[in-house]
Amino acid sequence: MTVIEKLKSLSIILPPVSGPFGSYIPAKRVGNLIYVAGQLPMKDGKLMATGQVPSKCSVELAIEAAKQCVVNGLAAVNGLPGGVDQIVGVARVGAFVSSDTAFTEQPKIANGASDLLQQIFGPAGQHARAAVGVNTLPRDGSVEIEFIFECAS
Amino acid sequence: MTVIEKLKSLSIILPPVSGPFGSYIPAKRVGNLIYVAGQLPMKDGKLMATGQVPSKCSVELAIEAAKQCVVNGLAAVNGLPGGVDQIVGVARVGAFVSSDTAFTEQPKIANGASDLLQQIFGPAGQHARAAVGVNTLPRDGSVEIEFIFECAS
Amino acid sequence: MTVIEKLKSLSIILPPVSGPFGSYIPAKRVGNLIYVAGQLPMKDGKLMATGQVPSKCSVELAIEAAKQCVVNGLAAVNGLPGGVDQIVGVARVGAFVSSDTAFTEQPKIANGASDLLQQIFGPAGQHARAAVGVNTLPRDGSVEIEFIFECAS
Repeated sequence: MTVIEKLKSLSIILPPVSGPFGSYIPAKRVGNLIYVAGQLPMKDGKLMATGQVPSKCSVELAIEAAKQCVVNGLAAVNGLPGGVDQIVGVARVGAFVSSDTAFTEQPKIANGASDLLQQIFGPAGQHARAAVGVNTLPRDGSVEIEFIFECAS
Repeated sequence: MTVIEKLKSLSIILPPVSGPFGSYIPAKRVGNLIYVAGQLPMKDGKLMATGQVPSKCSVELAIEAAKQCVVNGLAAVNGLPGGVDQIVGVARVGAFVSSDTAFTEQPKIANGASDLLQQIFGPAGQHARAAVGVNTLPRDGSVEIEFIFECAS
Repeated sequence: MTVIEKLKSLSIILPPVSGPFGSYIPAKRVGNLIYVAGQLPMKDGKLMATGQVPSKCSVELAIEAAKQCVVNGLAAVNGLPGGVDQIVGVARVGAFVSSDTAFTEQPKIANGASDLLQQIFGPAGQHARAAVGVNTLPRDGSVEIEFIFECAS
């Protein structure tokens, strides 16, 4: 099954590329790696989760937002020549969670992204990950997630 | 001397793999790179350093915690086929230090990790590094450190 | 035009390598990638921008500081065998902005770096990027930016 077929089977429709929100590009392939820019949880043209977790954004909403970052990240790759079907695995996920200082459950939120990646890519979707808290994110997004995908040579 | 022999000569015993604390894997090899997930300073099953530096965790303890992150990161690699002996160098270290806002000596803490890597790997252990402060980290750890190692092809 | 010639045409003079401010190296080549350590906006031996944006450092100054991080990052690469002329493209920029918690315009600041990279490298200078806020940075710098450059094989 191609990645596109798998996404269809999971009822995931890739949206138009979200952003970029600055003078960068959403995704860049270098050798066998695709670097995807930090994705905000944009949905239908606006952020679906804003503010620090949990005072301004619930853990549950932040988890959904993390899933949306995956969808947006795949849309970014799909805008490259070769599209999402060139992805053969996931190397690394970097998750930044806008957090109240007392909040320490960033992994629970990043799992929203990690679980979805494994649903889509199976064992090849397993990846290394860094998940950290930060005091604020661009546009007041609650999460920002970047990705490194692996491609066939 | 192999990496395993070098670790023995430094009296470093690799612990069981720490974590993962979410739906990711501790280390992933892609081509000649191994991406190691962000390591918390787990020791004997619990965090050896929690809270912001320096109000809740001393600089000295945080430095020791950074060393432990290296040990845990090597344990993560050792869980891969090929183990730590496939490592031929260190490419990048990413250090996140849970910090009071007035604290600006993150490099001093990250040096705990960098110095140990160079002790183990010699000149090949020299690496690029980003060390930053954050307001909070998963499980309230005082440091989280991720690694990219280089392997022979 | 070589990179060195292009820098000259833009009146950019690479300074001596800034730092390292710890036991790491300013840049490391691994295969076709060069990892550049997180650069602070050092200029003439001191930080040109300190403290959180915008309460202690203006957005305008932080943008200039981001440009300086590019200059310092290129100086770091120029200290490697092969110098800046081995760079054929920019893969990823990671921008950390020391931010008041209410500040959410980190992309505007990171654009200082991204725009300059594209001025220097043209279309090959386009890159993926993660820009986030953090509560504090080493030496109280207002920005810290790391780079991954692509080299010819």
